[in-house]
Amino acid sequence: MIERAAILSTGDEITTGKVVDTNSNYIADKLVEAGIDVVAVITVGDVAERIIWAWQQAIAQADVVISTGGIGPTADDLTTELVAKVAGVDLFFSEEVAERIRRIFASLNRPMPENNLKQARFPVGAVIIPNHLGTAPGYRLELKTPHGRKHLVVLPGVPREMKPMMEETVLPWLREMRGGGDVFLSRTFQTFGVSESGLDELVAGVVKEEEGRLAFRASFPQISLRVTVRGKPHEVGPRLDELSERIRARIGPFVYGEGDVTMEEVVGRLLKTAGKTLGVAEACSGGLVSHRLTNVPGSSAYFRGTVIAYADTAKTALLGVKPDTLRQHGAVSEETVREMAVGVRERLGTDIGIAITGIAGPEGGTPEKPLGTACLALATDGTLVSRRYQLWGNREWIKTLLSQLALDWVRRALLGLPIAEAGFIRR
Amino acid sequence: MIERAAILSTGDEITTGKVVDTNSNYIADKLVEAGIDVVAVITVGDVAERIIWAWQQAIAQADVVISTGGIGPTADDLTTELVAKVAGVDLFFSEEVAERIRRIFASLNRPMPENNLKQARFPVGAVIIPNHLGTAPGYRLELKTPHGRKHLVVLPGVPREMKPMMEETVLPWLREMRGGGDVFLSRTFQTFGVSESGLDELVAGVVKEEEGRLAFRASFPQISLRVTVRGKPHEVGPRLDELSERIRARIGPFVYGEGDVTMEEVVGRLLKTAGKTLGVAEACSGGLVSHRLTNVPGSSAYFRGTVIAYADTAKTALLGVKPDTLRQHGAVSEETVREMAVGVRERLGTDIGIAITGIAGPEGGTPEKPLGTACLALATDGTLVSRRYQLWGNREWIKTLLSQLALDWVRRALLGLPIAEAGFIRR
Repeated sequence: MIERAAILSTGDEITTGKVVDTNSNYIADKLVEAGIDVVAVITVGDVAERIIWAWQQAIAQADVVISTGGIGPTADDLTTELVAKVAGVDLFFSEEVAERIRRIFASLNRPMPENNLKQARFPVGAVIIPNHLGTAPGYRLELKTPHGRKHLVVLPGVPREMKPMMEETVLPWLREMRGGGDVFLSRTFQTFGVSESGLDELVAGVVKEEEGRLAFRASFPQISLRVTVRGKPHEVGPRLDELSERIRARIGPFVYGEGDVTMEEVVGRLLKTAGKTLGVAEACSGGLVSHRLTNVPGSSAYFRGTVIAYADTAKTALLGVKPDTLRQHGAVSEETVREMAVGVRERLGTDIGIAITGIAGPEGGTPEKPLGTACLALATDGTLVSRRYQLWGNREWIKTLLSQLALDWVRRALLGLPIAEAGFIRR
Repeated sequence: MIERAAILSTGDEITTGKVVDTNSNYIADKLVEAGIDVVAVITVGDVAERIIWAWQQAIAQADVVISTGGIGPTADDLTTELVAKVAGVDLFFSEEVAERIRRIFASLNRPMPENNLKQARFPVGAVIIPNHLGTAPGYRLELKTPHGRKHLVVLPGVPREMKPMMEETVLPWLREMRGGGDVFLSRTFQTFGVSESGLDELVAGVVKEEEGRLAFRASFPQISLRVTVRGKPHEVGPRLDELSERIRARIGPFVYGEGDVTMEEVVGRLLKTAGKTLGVAEACSGGLVSHRLTNVPGSSAYFRGTVIAYADTAKTALLGVKPDTLRQHGAVSEETVREMAVGVRERLGTDIGIAITGIAGPEGGTPEKPLGTACLALATDGTLVSRRYQLWGNREWIKTLLSQLALDWVRRALLGLPIAEAGFIRR
């Protein structure tokens, strides 16, 4: 039975402060969701004796140890060798894994450095955890100790490889190993247009302590609210539904999705369902709206293209913005952004045209149009909406916020919600 | 003498994944700068037995333990009480600190909750570390153990209070305690076009263990190599220069920058220096090249704009790609991408036009053009280069890789390096 977990991070980059250890945070979050108590997080650099110490401590404290890092191909990757040592077993060579690594390199027409085969070695008894996005698979290993069975889970340190491995293999296995007793069930609401403290005020008192637990998480530009209930397997579903309904009644207009969904996925689904196409004209958001839209698989079904008109000449040459409009009102104006939206919609022959212009800084602000001034416009067949915003933050913050705002406009247009009420996050 | 440190974080918010522990990262960075080796970072929740365990472990491993969190006024703040227990001393009440807390509340015209006076209690022997931004001061405590003198440093968990306390009090004291010993100095090379293991092979043997330490870090799409030397203050500079030269001799062509620099910053600087302008035509990279370019402040000096031609109609309407070319060779072909590069360069009147097309998946692959097929072209006044690549990975990976590749093409074009030799990262 698995009840207590320890998380172990290996890497000089963490103990020397070069990198923030976000892996441990992600894993802790998932473990808590699965009803497992995290007793400790231990981080050590790439030094053999410290890694051994960390494993011994972690094993003594917990039923399962989840480790990230130290399984790359290079000389400073020591984890597998040391795990075998701690477990008191030999290493074996997996011809199957080696063959996969060779195939990856062959498909790239590149010679495989010999040291990559290090990633095909595992402690005897290890069960491989597939890694679809990299050469290094993970593994788990069961250990019998005087204090009971212990489970060691070894994953790569690269977040984009580690996370799918957790979701697809480790978490389902953990849930099974956890067995009976109370279970946890949670639901997450993704919101936009209200601050974390604003959200907190809106839901104040809606969930009693004995009913469930609320957790806010700001992962800019998303603010999510997770509600978790604990109880017998047959109780948690209905209770969660009931609490969710109460919460929705308070914050409904700000909720754009449930679960891990992103705004671009929501917009994509809505466009697909409505059978509508989208064209984008970006200036200061610099391509971020389009980048996000095209991160969604299948986006070519509704996204036709974008003109990023950074220079004024690009606005006239590619979008047909009148030189007069630019001269009279400037590039960051409702007049210009309206012509951009109409222009891109016409040129690409789409149902919807959305346009964004603004001043992301650090330079370019004026007293009339300070840093963070931004204008949006949305054109459809027969409608044209625009609005000016005053945003706040640095260049990256403003770009991100504008991309979220533009996508929210499209979402609102498709749902028939009032566009002009789309807000923006303030810290 | 203080040489080895352990960092300790206390708080349920960390072990349940609600908050990323950035305090430890900050402290680790400062300690390394001060020449102190961080042997471990340990995080535990607000549970007495776990906090005691963590302190005991930390004290056993290090000369100094720096702890954050657990010294607030509420019932789950246990650190001070437990530090006293671990150190085997009683608590004392500081009337001076209590008076300051009372004054803070009075100045806010707010009643002081009684439990705030908890923050005026300290282990006997503690030296107070002032906190100008909050009610809870920190402290340090010296401990005599069979393994020598140990120093315990206790700080609040709120970053904006903790950081000035580190800078103003803890670090100066640490530097003094460290004495005139060795210092560390490091340099980081950013590379592209070679895998982590390939890099490892290239530099194998170039730095002897007693000379310095190499650390690789893959933060896709960047792979960096850091070299760190340790020695007397007057020795480390020249030694680092000498080692850097040796490393450059091996991996020079792959190095695009030193330090924290990104590829888009390097490209921006080169464009600015050369006084050249850039136009971009993206298809499957979906705006990521432009997003990265415009993340650099001041990019409007050289970046004019982009056409993201996702649909074929956008390629003809906005870039002038011939319908015949699309029909005969398809959207993902060297023929099409060459017309895209020429088209965007002409329409935006830029010195350089770069174009990217490909199949990012998960759908759209064919036997002749499988998933990951991509073509790039770069047009200048009088030159036109193109190449077809076969990439590997999921949608996000391929987009990221293509954006890095496109930027590297521009970099190579500006430096007069052979473009066709630009490679791509594999682990």
